[in-house]
Amino acid sequence: MKLAANRTDEFYMRCALELAANGRECSPNPRVGCVIARGGGIIGRGWHKKCGGPHAEVEALRDAGGDIEGADVYVTLEPCSHYGRTPPCADMLAERRPKRVIAALTDPNPKVAGRGLKKLRNAGIEVETGVLEEECRWMNRGFLRRMALGRPWVTLKVAASLDGMVALPNGESRWITGAEARKRTHGMRAENDALLTGVGTVVADDPRMTVRDAPGRSPVRALLDRTLRTPPTAKILDGGAVIFTLADASQERGEALESAGASIVRVASGEDFLPEVLKELCGRGVNYLMVEAGPAVASSFIKEKLCDELALFIAPKIIGNGKSFAGLAEFAKIEDAPRVKDVKYTKCGDDLLIRGVFECSPDL
Amino acid sequence: MKLAANRTDEFYMRCALELAANGRECSPNPRVGCVIARGGGIIGRGWHKKCGGPHAEVEALRDAGGDIEGADVYVTLEPCSHYGRTPPCADMLAERRPKRVIAALTDPNPKVAGRGLKKLRNAGIEVETGVLEEECRWMNRGFLRRMALGRPWVTLKVAASLDGMVALPNGESRWITGAEARKRTHGMRAENDALLTGVGTVVADDPRMTVRDAPGRSPVRALLDRTLRTPPTAKILDGGAVIFTLADASQERGEALESAGASIVRVASGEDFLPEVLKELCGRGVNYLMVEAGPAVASSFIKEKLCDELALFIAPKIIGNGKSFAGLAEFAKIEDAPRVKDVKYTKCGDDLLIRGVFECSPDL
Ligand SMILES: NC(=O)c1ccc[n+]([C@@H]2O[C@H](COP(=O)([O-])OP(=O)(O)OC[C@H]3O[C@@H](n4cnc5c(N)ncnc54)[C@H](OP(=O)(O)O)[C@@H]3O)[C@@H](O)[C@H]2O)c1
Ligand SMILES: NC(=O)c1ccc[n+]([C@@H]2O[C@H](COP(=O)([O-])OP(=O)(O)OC[C@H]3O[C@@H](n4cnc5c(N)ncnc54)[C@H](OP(=O)(O)O)[C@@H]3O)[C@@H](O)[C@H]2O)c1
Repeated sequence: MKLAANRTDEFYMRCALELAANGRECSPNPRVGCVIARGGGIIGRGWHKKCGGPHAEVEALRDAGGDIEGADVYVTLEPCSHYGRTPPCADMLAERRPKRVIAALTDPNPKVAGRGLKKLRNAGIEVETGVLEEECRWMNRGFLRRMALGRPWVTLKVAASLDGMVALPNGESRWITGAEARKRTHGMRAENDALLTGVGTVVADDPRMTVRDAPGRSPVRALLDRTLRTPPTAKILDGGAVIFTLADASQERGEALESAGASIVRVASGEDFLPEVLKELCGRGVNYLMVEAGPAVASSFIKEKLCDELALFIAPKIIGNGKSFAGLAEFAKIEDAPRVKDVKYTKCGDDLLIRGVFECSPDL
Repeated sequence: MKLAANRTDEFYMRCALELAANGRECSPNPRVGCVIARGGGIIGRGWHKKCGGPHAEVEALRDAGGDIEGADVYVTLEPCSHYGRTPPCADMLAERRPKRVIAALTDPNPKVAGRGLKKLRNAGIEVETGVLEEECRWMNRGFLRRMALGRPWVTLKVAASLDGMVALPNGESRWITGAEARKRTHGMRAENDALLTGVGTVVADDPRMTVRDAPGRSPVRALLDRTLRTPPTAKILDGGAVIFTLADASQERGEALESAGASIVRVASGEDFLPEVLKELCGRGVNYLMVEAGPAVASSFIKEKLCDELALFIAPKIIGNGKSFAGLAEFAKIEDAPRVKDVKYTKCGDDLLIRGVFECSPDL
């Protein structure tokens, strides 16, 4: 019965997916979970804990005690086929003679890209793909974005008033949203590999951009500053930050900032500044980037269609005349206004958190 | 047992409150419901259906078959004591010898103001007040606002983007929110006694401002136009509209607009324009007013602290540079930004409806 088989496969794959979710610090690798089932029950569970550590399949095999002959192996991503930091999982599995290997999706990594599954098939093991594929893609949206487009998954985070304002005309902006939203923001920071802001925010607010109000490590901090006007005393440099600037920005100021803890990355073209910055971040293994910037940088990301996700905190107040979070992006017609889909609303203290995916975000 | 008695009283009062809610077209009167209970059960139910019709107490007495001796009468508002369109309910009740009359609140109408309850007490009937008072006040917030402050309960309704915009810089603004929000707006219109807009909206969009997509009658339409620049062909005049203008606005244009169906109200002072307009509307029996205007009028209402409630539809799109719904109101500090409390969120098709009460709205 096809339907029943699918239901069972989905059940075990969902277990694998839940295990995968434990791997919070495995960037730049994808999050992978693995469940091994035999005789109507689970005999092994594993997930990829962190980059450099054992893969999910190895963990699950260990958990199963080594004998998985005739079993079904559910894994959220195609087993790898190449020698990396660990030997290829596809070979290891082929030797152990499971009956079937069910992978949610093929690995887009060009070093794998179907070769893992092929090895298994060649070894006479049944192979299936596509079970809960959508959920698995969503879980690894950062890794997939980086593999497919050479840029991270970009979340634009904004805290605004009911009328979309982030600051008064004079720039005053602190404490728009409340303590719960701040806590939530810190939690969101910890889920990202890097945070990005603009020099305008650094000059106006001197933020630290670290994770303090939530568990988790602080991500890499990145700063857009085309003329290196960041003050060397800026708090964001404390503990290190990457400053993206233009090739011809002052060497002297660059050195001063390096002494203050910054690493300076000079991007050749001013035209393609943001795409270049994203490429650079990708090269550093950043799968997930959260942009927490003022209207200038936020508007550029929106205008250049480089945002994948929106996280908008709305405080229950009306600021009136002020700086709107996207006020520097201009569109010719209402129909051109970027839309957000799959919108979810969550109350967050007195504030509201609206999350959604930009329609311009390419399919995963 | 005091607690048990209170619970019973609350139960019956809640029934009366639910009955009161049926009275959708009783403005300028308050919505009143009445439940008569005896021997542990309800023997009569009534509510005020419309202005000029019988009061809730009379309906409930009729429903009880006329004999309410020894019964408990629950009524959401103090029984009236004066001869209006109907004889005083307090006298009528006193004659029928109920044991107790429980009123949620005293009638703020200066013609009543405690006299109804006094009559009952003098006749030897037990009187209690304050049961579910808050809910009853909320249900009659328009009537109470008009009685206490001589102005209606003002709901500011706005349809904006995620970034608070209602139009592009060039004024293009149609179809920001979707069909569900439009339907909901029409339902909200039907709950108000009057709708108000500004001549800017009339010139830009030529709206009809009637109830079409929902059941219910169309409210009075009011228009702010200090120099009578409304085109006599404007759709809002179709079926009649009140245009509020300044004393010195052109007589000739006034006559042209009157021929087109408008009734012109000249307000003496330009300084106190909005408060005067609200007073005039009050004088016409408007308990509930919904403002559906562009940024100029909306900003004035916000700045002058004349809004009681906000109904903000947010469409999942980002308009960027544009006209923000409150962009002409300016505040010196973030702490001065008007806040909204008791916020409720409802999904409305693809859009979100945020409702709340302005903190500057005086207590009911
Ligand atoms: N509520 C919030 O969510 C939030 C978050 C952050 C900041 N803010 C507020 O935003 C205000 C600061 O606004 P802002 O717009 O000046 O800050 P910003 O967007 O953080 O920084 C703007 C600066 O970034 C530089 N930049 C580099 N590449 C850019 C690009 N591709 N596009 C645009 N800018 C680029 C520009 O300076 P160069 O040309 O010199 O490189 C620009 O002036 C402050 O009031 C702050 O409090 C609010
Ligand atoms: N999305 C929405 O919720 C929504 C709703 C309505 C309109 N709109 C959009 O808003 C735009 C029109 O904006 P608008 O600001 O021109 O329209 P508006 O606010 O409806 O009308 C403004 C005009 O009203 C008059 N007015 C009278 N008393 C006023 C007072 N106390 N304060 C301010 N104005 C007063 C002024 O003209 P006089 O000085 O000549 O009297 C003023 O120019 C259009 O693009 C329309 O589509 C959007």
